[in-house]
Amino acid sequence: MNKTTAKAEYGYDAWLRYRSIEPGERREEFNRFSGIVVEGTDEPLAHTAARELSRGLSGMLGREVSVLEHAGDAPCFVLGRLGRSPIIDGMFPEGEASLGLGREGYALRHEPGSGRIAIGADSDAGLLYGAFDVLRRIGTGQSLKGLNIVERPVNGLRMLNQWDNMDGSIERGYAGSSIFYEKNRFTQNLERLRDYARLLASTGINAIAINNVNVHRIETELITEALLPEVAKVAEIFRMYGIKLFLSINYAAPLEIGGLSTADPLEPEVAAWWRERAAEIYRTIPDFGGFLVKADSENRPGPFTYGRDHADGANMLAEALEPYGGLVIWRCFVYNCKQDWRDRKTDRARAAYDHFVPLDGRFKENVILQVKNGPIDFQVREPVSPLLGAMPLTNQMIEFQVTQEYTGQQHHVCYLVPQWKEVLDFDSHLKGEGSTVKRIVDGTLHASRYSGFAAVSNIGCDANWTGHLLAQANLYGYGRLAWNPELSAEGIADEWIRLVFGSDERVIQVIRGILMDSWSIYEKYTAPLGIGFMVNPNHHYGPNVDGYEYSMWGTYHFADCRGIGVDRTIATGTGYTSQYAEPNQSRYETLETCPDELLLFFHHVPYTHVLQSGKTVIQHIYDTHFEGVEQAGKLAELWAGLSGLIEEPLHRQVAERLAEQAEHAKEWRDQINTYFYRKSGIPDQQGRRMY
Amino acid sequence: MNKTTAKAEYGYDAWLRYRSIEPGERREEFNRFSGIVVEGTDEPLAHTAARELSRGLSGMLGREVSVLEHAGDAPCFVLGRLGRSPIIDGMFPEGEASLGLGREGYALRHEPGSGRIAIGADSDAGLLYGAFDVLRRIGTGQSLKGLNIVERPVNGLRMLNQWDNMDGSIERGYAGSSIFYEKNRFTQNLERLRDYARLLASTGINAIAINNVNVHRIETELITEALLPEVAKVAEIFRMYGIKLFLSINYAAPLEIGGLSTADPLEPEVAAWWRERAAEIYRTIPDFGGFLVKADSENRPGPFTYGRDHADGANMLAEALEPYGGLVIWRCFVYNCKQDWRDRKTDRARAAYDHFVPLDGRFKENVILQVKNGPIDFQVREPVSPLLGAMPLTNQMIEFQVTQEYTGQQHHVCYLVPQWKEVLDFDSHLKGEGSTVKRIVDGTLHASRYSGFAAVSNIGCDANWTGHLLAQANLYGYGRLAWNPELSAEGIADEWIRLVFGSDERVIQVIRGILMDSWSIYEKYTAPLGIGFMVNPNHHYGPNVDGYEYSMWGTYHFADCRGIGVDRTIATGTGYTSQYAEPNQSRYETLETCPDELLLFFHHVPYTHVLQSGKTVIQHIYDTHFEGVEQAGKLAELWAGLSGLIEEPLHRQVAERLAEQAEHAKEWRDQINTYFYRKSGIPDQQGRRMY
Repeated sequence: MNKTTAKAEYGYDAWLRYRSIEPGERREEFNRFSGIVVEGTDEPLAHTAARELSRGLSGMLGREVSVLEHAGDAPCFVLGRLGRSPIIDGMFPEGEASLGLGREGYALRHEPGSGRIAIGADSDAGLLYGAFDVLRRIGTGQSLKGLNIVERPVNGLRMLNQWDNMDGSIERGYAGSSIFYEKNRFTQNLERLRDYARLLASTGINAIAINNVNVHRIETELITEALLPEVAKVAEIFRMYGIKLFLSINYAAPLEIGGLSTADPLEPEVAAWWRERAAEIYRTIPDFGGFLVKADSENRPGPFTYGRDHADGANMLAEALEPYGGLVIWRCFVYNCKQDWRDRKTDRARAAYDHFVPLDGRFKENVILQVKNGPIDFQVREPVSPLLGAMPLTNQMIEFQVTQEYTGQQHHVCYLVPQWKEVLDFDSHLKGEGSTVKRIVDGTLHASRYSGFAAVSNIGCDANWTGHLLAQANLYGYGRLAWNPELSAEGIADEWIRLVFGSDERVIQVIRGILMDSWSIYEKYTAPLGIGFMVNPNHHYGPNVDGYEYSMWGTYHFADCRGIGVDRTIATGTGYTSQYAEPNQSRYETLETCPDELLLFFHHVPYTHVLQSGKTVIQHIYDTHFEGVEQAGKLAELWAGLSGLIEEPLHRQVAERLAEQAEHAKEWRDQINTYFYRKSGIPDQQGRRMY
Repeated sequence: MNKTTAKAEYGYDAWLRYRSIEPGERREEFNRFSGIVVEGTDEPLAHTAARELSRGLSGMLGREVSVLEHAGDAPCFVLGRLGRSPIIDGMFPEGEASLGLGREGYALRHEPGSGRIAIGADSDAGLLYGAFDVLRRIGTGQSLKGLNIVERPVNGLRMLNQWDNMDGSIERGYAGSSIFYEKNRFTQNLERLRDYARLLASTGINAIAINNVNVHRIETELITEALLPEVAKVAEIFRMYGIKLFLSINYAAPLEIGGLSTADPLEPEVAAWWRERAAEIYRTIPDFGGFLVKADSENRPGPFTYGRDHADGANMLAEALEPYGGLVIWRCFVYNCKQDWRDRKTDRARAAYDHFVPLDGRFKENVILQVKNGPIDFQVREPVSPLLGAMPLTNQMIEFQVTQEYTGQQHHVCYLVPQWKEVLDFDSHLKGEGSTVKRIVDGTLHASRYSGFAAVSNIGCDANWTGHLLAQANLYGYGRLAWNPELSAEGIADEWIRLVFGSDERVIQVIRGILMDSWSIYEKYTAPLGIGFMVNPNHHYGPNVDGYEYSMWGTYHFADCRGIGVDRTIATGTGYTSQYAEPNQSRYETLETCPDELLLFFHHVPYTHVLQSGKTVIQHIYDTHFEGVEQAGKLAELWAGLSGLIEEPLHRQVAERLAEQAEHAKEWRDQINTYFYRKSGIPDQQGRRMY
């Protein structure tokens, strides 16, 4: 077994495996193609597109499909920029004005006469996305006959945040150490970075921040001469795939490495220092994306130290980057992380909204606020953050977490696309019905200049990138959803499965079932009814009902012998519900209309409270935990049934993780059920075993 | 302020400060002494004794009190070996046969005619202990007129265990990093080691194991040529103070550093390897003490791996050391540390007894079992270990923990001598009434060849050795109690206070009060009624009621909405009480006779159970926690009242710690009370604030 085969068998090629197409009609159709032609551009990115197309077709057809000098009589693929090539303009006579492809869109068209497939775009990036689209269509078994489509990304920014540290560790990383750094230096393995860029580009990702938002000592120097040449090498790799590079910065950098005595954003010498840094960066990396900033958050430095606010802090950086078209992405994950657990009035859920909404209109045009999808922190279930869309004059983007910090850490399967879809489809009603989150983050609701998606990546140096092979579907799905939030979770799963495992319908059906059920199963055996946490402190893996109950982190459940939940109502609680527009406000405020799955997030109720489902809270806890474990066990059984139908190394690695999940789910079940049984004294109606 | 003054002011000199004696009768008495004479010995240890006496007297009298060649007419101190010096034999005409001073004892006698004070001994170690006794008498304000006493240590082994690692860290160390090692090398600061040896010798300590019982990679090599020369240097320092050096060894050393494929104690090549190590060690350190061994305990390697038992494991090592008079000290802290919390039948408290009692009679004569004072792990309150004395044919020593792992980590004051006294005075009834623990560990109950005290040290490189200045009293008290368990806790406290703070009666009274109340106060605001733990996992600092409730460590409280406690009875529980002889067994077994302070250790009871005190369990929990906090606050107030009466730097450092304790005690109170209030639903009779 050679190295390439070994990699493929362990999942390294992920969804770019380019499995050989079985003999038959489809293979016949593509066998006719003689090669690939590039028209009207000589940009590196266009050549990347042609090379990727060649590589993919060659893999799927088992023969070299080359990039040709000129289109001949035989059918071929033509990639070309509109308005610059007679062949392309001949195939798209309506022209860009009518197609409206924009900065990253593309059109695909099959010309029955010549048999040619055209990929037309108004940009080289569009050609790359078009090429990957064609490959995805072929790879998922579709015919290209009669193809005639136009595609534009719905979101401008489609970004990943790497929480990688230069020592090689990854904050909240569950798939091995960093592919970017080791031992406080940049990696020597640039091939792996290139392969990562390919994976990302193929899903539509166009931006990446390559270091942890918690910026430690050495990473503070990424914006200096000492490390910028290395950053530039990485930027070049990602540039070849249409991905802009960003850096997370340390707000205290002027103090820590600049020799200044302050980092006050209103201090001219501080602003000058950052301008100088920006100039230096853009001399080295002319298309540098900008800064990602975690400031005044979880003990990180920020403008508060100097009595300044977030707008002061962000705008100063934005001015430094403005001449070069750079962006400041400012995270809104700001709350009091030294809360007193005795104080029930302070509500972490309120914090981001309370901090930022008063600043609406004060941020410069090249500042974007990055808002986590929920008000707490990437829990298995929380409401949508009311800050999203609540600042009509301010650019916003949403932040998801692909890495499964609170959702099983890639030891449990948890396909997150359905969760993200729920968030995106949530109607904020901020400008009346239809003010969905997806319209906020795509910029249309408030006509924002910049907007989009960000997410924390889930990859590391594990052979299959994500530790759990099935977690690849989250990375794939994130990119696809960022491109087009209208795609369905099932459809995305289906694509990923076909690209990785092939076209066996039984395989597809089983794996799609596992993925689609996985979030619900994980939710069942972990923290119930939207209450969140109940995990071990610090590493956040495994059950610990009181793990954060007496801590300073502001994440409580307030369970006593009578009931549980956080009263966030206006009437009797923290008033958090007031941050939502009607009718959401009333829906959450009122016990009778509050959705079951968020009940304990919004209300403190007795264990005997009857849910809309008809069950009491306590019986719901017992039942879901027994069910969740049973269903987790079923996942392993279902997977076992695929033995022989997929490659053994891929099968084995997932089987091992599913077995671990089934065992660990029991630990969750027993700790949670025992905790509530001991606390409430209410027996399970079915008399099942508790401790 | 010179360096010496600074050190003294911060507590570095501890109880060897040798404060100047105030003008007056006492000073007159000692001013008459011309010097010190050594008779009948030229051993280094005797010269250490003379030097220490000279140093102490010079300090207290403010003039050089020298070591003289010959006794003159003026009064002097005469140190001398019996039967070797006419002067000494003249002062002790009855001779050693009648005095019976043994290997470490001494006699002190004042000869009114000559005015001489004689320190006579049958060993050079005895002279050293005698010299320190004289200094202690003078330092605590006593006259030596008419002095005529004989002192012998009650316990043969009076040992400290350093849990120091060569990287400089100290397992369970709360006073800075190691004074023995830094950065994986031995310290260069041998002066500090010498000062430590002085402190220990002055209290009577005669043995020390200088590395952590958890022996990591580099420390495994302490028994090899690579590190033995360094070990020998340390041994020499301690030898000058009569302290034998021991090493903790790694049972898997033959595998890890010996190149063997096994560490099976019955394998001849393994035994040969250890014999070779012993030979090498004794070539380098002829008076090496022996090995301290933690085997098959908390994931440490041991004979179990090879299907052998503790006796096989210990005896093989004992054979290797036997030719040189070396000892094997084998720890009995053995239990299942991968327990399932659901399993209520497995009881960690039973483990040591169950493991070792069946092996009685199988251990070689130079093996000593080291048994922790309680069956769990150095909790603020637990019963006495039933293993102590339960092996009449086996040498045993008791293990205390001077370092305050579970008793406030030297941020809270907790004078442990009263706790140790309770343990030592406990009557096991193993050979009828009067079978006290102190008679077990001094070897008289079973006529053991070797026996004594061991304890985990509480010192580090902090200026005052112990972090909390008042924690010095624990180290001092441990040594004094090991010498003579009949000393009272108050008396020991009194000595320490006078030696450190001087003779102001108000100072003495206040500090003695603080020390004597401190254990009870700490117990009040932490885990109630003998249940133990309720601390944060791993570091063990601060409250966490369920911190170990669902873990594998076997330390549970089983609190539910009705009650709390561990049923360890024969009748309905784990049967642990059966390990005690009558009448202890029945006393613990029976709810009505079980002492309140151990109730939850032995019984699971409802919160409404009425204690012998007349209070319910729940009200006891509430009351003690409010009281404990109040009293902790009082300690700080009492200390504040000493301002101006003791040196400011000493006053300040303790004031800071007491303030921290007062605050942190509230965290304990609120978490514990809130936990039980939420769980039981029973209100406080006094309606005090809970959360």
